[in-house]
Amino acid sequence: MSDLSLAQAQTILAAALEKATALQLSPLAVAVLDGRGALKAFASQDGTSLKRGEIALGKANGALALGTGSRSLFRRAKDQPFFIAAATAATGGSLVPVPGGVLIRDKDGKVMGVVGISGDTSDNDEACAVAGIAAAGLTSDPGQD
Amino acid sequence: MSDLSLAQAQTILAAALEKATALQLSPLAVAVLDGRGALKAFASQDGTSLKRGEIALGKANGALALGTGSRSLFRRAKDQPFFIAAATAATGGSLVPVPGGVLIRDKDGKVMGVVGISGDTSDNDEACAVAGIAAAGLTSDPGQD
Amino acid sequence: MSDLSLAQAQTILAAALEKATALQLSPLAVAVLDGRGALKAFASQDGTSLKRGEIALGKANGALALGTGSRSLFRRAKDQPFFIAAATAATGGSLVPVPGGVLIRDKDGKVMGVVGISGDTSDNDEACAVAGIAAAGLTSDPGQD
Amino acid sequence: MSDLSLAQAQTILAAALEKATALQLSPLAVAVLDGRGALKAFASQDGTSLKRGEIALGKANGALALGTGSRSLFRRAKDQPFFIAAATAATGGSLVPVPGGVLIRDKDGKVMGVVGISGDTSDNDEACAVAGIAAAGLTSDPGQD
Repeated sequence: MSDLSLAQAQTILAAALEKATALQLSPLAVAVLDGRGALKAFASQDGTSLKRGEIALGKANGALALGTGSRSLFRRAKDQPFFIAAATAATGGSLVPVPGGVLIRDKDGKVMGVVGISGDTSDNDEACAVAGIAAAGLTSDPGQD
Repeated sequence: MSDLSLAQAQTILAAALEKATALQLSPLAVAVLDGRGALKAFASQDGTSLKRGEIALGKANGALALGTGSRSLFRRAKDQPFFIAAATAATGGSLVPVPGGVLIRDKDGKVMGVVGISGDTSDNDEACAVAGIAAAGLTSDPGQD
Repeated sequence: MSDLSLAQAQTILAAALEKATALQLSPLAVAVLDGRGALKAFASQDGTSLKRGEIALGKANGALALGTGSRSLFRRAKDQPFFIAAATAATGGSLVPVPGGVLIRDKDGKVMGVVGISGDTSDNDEACAVAGIAAAGLTSDPGQD
Repeated sequence: MSDLSLAQAQTILAAALEKATALQLSPLAVAVLDGRGALKAFASQDGTSLKRGEIALGKANGALALGTGSRSLFRRAKDQPFFIAAATAATGGSLVPVPGGVLIRDKDGKVMGVVGISGDTSDNDEACAVAGIAAAGLTSDPGQD
């Protein structure tokens, strides 16, 4: 895989927060992880609740763990909640199956990392992740309904 | 945020227990946490079951983690049980999504802490938390149905 | 065993804090558990660090788990650190082997509960626990050097 | 306590990385947490090992948990390794007792948050944290030898 650089991760982070400001969203936590699942960049806006960051990380971890944007996990959670519960336990307990965990793909479609955002509605969280990834010239994979 | 003092936490605790006595409730466990999620004051009435305190703490932790009174988490648990299960795992395993976890807000609406009560019906648990917070001159946020 | 009542636990708590004020100690966290290991009463003074309460609970849990005041566990930790490490893991991870976890015994010597205090020197923490237990007319067992 | 803003946390982060560049250090992971222990800002430079960020977080968590810069925990770890092992278990498993976890204090000495850095020597990690905090006009508490 192509390595996600810190410069790219910071571009994604800044653009996601800019989008949130433009949309006048509630305070967000934004996590950008590389393809190994290691945190590259993170920001939590003023006013976020105590564990909001953990929810953002849970969206990112879940998407990366199963190789699909967390919107697909949301659909799966409604169809097969037992699978999501099992996968959560099997993968270490941090997998939040709602939209807002968006894979970052390179021009060949390879997974370079993931963005997880939480704080507003799941749809708005996801929109900020997509905007951030676009600003870095990379491809978003939010998963499918 | 404003710091929740031990004196305030003890006022909340005493008033919550007074309310429980007035309502002739079953024995309660009452936990008051500051805005960091650190326990400030706690009491468990005689006759409570072995882990009743952990249930009270779970209501408090869940409310603080997600920034909403646990009555809102109760509604979410009925609508999207998989989200609550995932958030429980992602935030460390202590999140009880029924009424009785009531945020303490200051006059500007900032979260100063949380009260979690368990032992009687969830509605009665919540009523005691609200009474305690009022006695300290602070604002309750029990969440919404 | 005799049950430790909430009234007794609150007497212990208040007297321990009074002793701390008299000695002008750093801010303390004080936990009083009954004989089952269930938390009965707790207070954390203003200015305690984020996890100070967990240290106090760890002293209390360790003393109760092994049936000896934590001063004995301190001695054991110096002699056989591997035993304390193993016991910590085996009993669930909360066992802090320094003075300040003091068993509460009734007049027949039976264990009714335990007090754990942290925040100042271990010796001062222990002195406050002993003062609290005495104020309730019960017997302290801080363990032996 | 005064709230640590995202703007302050980002200033600390940027200045810490600038210091690292000036000193030509190995790649660093830098974590800035608020007084609640919630992550505010994070960056991991290109080339860091898989769990370098967790080491940085462990320095930060340990310092905040016990209310002292992690240099003090380093000294304690050498004197009483069993205490550090016990505190690690009791506070949730993330406590790295070497220099580089530096408390952020406001002008009244209150703890506003903490910076944890890992990647180069502990002394260099700490120097970057101190430089970052100074750039935000705040006071560093690295702990004492």
